[in-house]
Amino acid sequence: MAYSVNFVSVLCALCVIIPFLASMMICGLNHFLMSNPEAKLAELGLKLPATAAAAGNYVPTVRTGNLLFCAGTICIADGKMTHEGQVGKEHTVQTAYESAKVCVLNSLANIKAATGSLDSVARVVMVNGFVNAVSGFADSPAVINGASDLLVAVFGDAGKHARAAVAVAGLPRNSTTEIQLVVELKS
Amino acid sequence: MAYSVNFVSVLCALCVIIPFLASMMICGLNHFLMSNPEAKLAELGLKLPATAAAAGNYVPTVRTGNLLFCAGTICIADGKMTHEGQVGKEHTVQTAYESAKVCVLNSLANIKAATGSLDSVARVVMVNGFVNAVSGFADSPAVINGASDLLVAVFGDAGKHARAAVAVAGLPRNSTTEIQLVVELKS
Amino acid sequence: MAYSVNFVSVLCALCVIIPFLASMMICGLNHFLMSNPEAKLAELGLKLPATAAAAGNYVPTVRTGNLLFCAGTICIADGKMTHEGQVGKEHTVQTAYESAKVCVLNSLANIKAATGSLDSVARVVMVNGFVNAVSGFADSPAVINGASDLLVAVFGDAGKHARAAVAVAGLPRNSTTEIQLVVELKS
Repeated sequence: MAYSVNFVSVLCALCVIIPFLASMMICGLNHFLMSNPEAKLAELGLKLPATAAAAGNYVPTVRTGNLLFCAGTICIADGKMTHEGQVGKEHTVQTAYESAKVCVLNSLANIKAATGSLDSVARVVMVNGFVNAVSGFADSPAVINGASDLLVAVFGDAGKHARAAVAVAGLPRNSTTEIQLVVELKS
Repeated sequence: MAYSVNFVSVLCALCVIIPFLASMMICGLNHFLMSNPEAKLAELGLKLPATAAAAGNYVPTVRTGNLLFCAGTICIADGKMTHEGQVGKEHTVQTAYESAKVCVLNSLANIKAATGSLDSVARVVMVNGFVNAVSGFADSPAVINGASDLLVAVFGDAGKHARAAVAVAGLPRNSTTEIQLVVELKS
Repeated sequence: MAYSVNFVSVLCALCVIIPFLASMMICGLNHFLMSNPEAKLAELGLKLPATAAAAGNYVPTVRTGNLLFCAGTICIADGKMTHEGQVGKEHTVQTAYESAKVCVLNSLANIKAATGSLDSVARVVMVNGFVNAVSGFADSPAVINGASDLLVAVFGDAGKHARAAVAVAGLPRNSTTEIQLVVELKS
């Protein structure tokens, strides 16, 4: 009798505990798969660069309320320019598309340095994408998609942003692209 | 006696009701005239276009707090470019002025799609106006006035905004202008 | 006896009052030296210009919440352009650096006109710096440092901002630079 009471108790307890643990595991896995931007970067074979020193008397990010305004970032990695020159001259849309990803990685490194983790990002709000290009260049969206595609790959739906993509006469250090973000932080 | 009591009661009631209804009518009329941006558009002979699909991996608007960041919009209507080419080459200040209005209509269509109604707009905060122009073009304000004039015509005082108007080397699909808005929404 | 009681009381009182007054003086002096932007401007031999009329149907500043979005400002003083033309043609990096300071003074005049005092500024959030330059110009950061250096000189740490510095095809009235600020106001 004491045995069967114990058995029933344990059974009842398991009926509560197992689904609870299972749901926690699913949630955790889900969280890992869906909303861990740094794991997502690793999965894409990318890693955040060391943050570069600002090329002037400014700072990489400023927080105001829940918004983080990020300084524009250029195509630099390990202190060396990765993409220099204009689209329509030294670069094609395809190489410039890749260059925009380099900028985004620098922006993400700045966001992590400012907040401790990319998990702090609630939403990418705005992307200002500048393409260093010859006069009359009409394909800035195809170039800035390099930035947009990476942000959506890393953050999922929270990476979807409003955007302006324009071709400009020149960029710092003759960078092929420059990306400037506004993001919303969690709480 | 009962008759005159009734008469006095009715008179008193009318004295309350008539001014109340009158003031409501005046307020309503005022509201209609002063702050119904969609009626104002109709009065100007304009209507909102169908929203165009984003030309990239981004979204037309992102809300953060009470701010709505709108993606840059170009000179497109019914899927066809209305103004292509640069000011100083294919376009004059006057035709470019008109082109900026086309952009604004696309931005307003995006705002309506996001919020349900242009009545949701408390204030236009910022207009970033980009003019596709030859190097050295100095009249970007006269072009971007096409956007500013329409916003003020539609929203009245609530349409008055801060602004930057610059000439750039190129715009998406060779659009003559691009307009990017930040608006404040009602609560 | 009464005398020495009085003496002790006075001594005690002085022990409280003197450090209190001293700390207030130090705080006040500190406040004056550290966070009085208008005194700092005077110390730099600069003064705010008269606010210029907007060159279009827009306003110099719009407040939304604690943010003040400022319209882009150009190189104008006393109604006359101080710096016209492009870097790489009519201007060098050094003269353009000076031109960016003229823009900042106009922005600060607009902020003061909107809020009553530069003391209202809690933080400079974002600087969008546009350089009117020949195609391929790569030194926009060195030019926009004119704006950044002045903001940090005037506001100290509160002047440190995120920034984008790009070269564009043209600016209003052929201005050499244009500066557009977003600042956070004290509550």
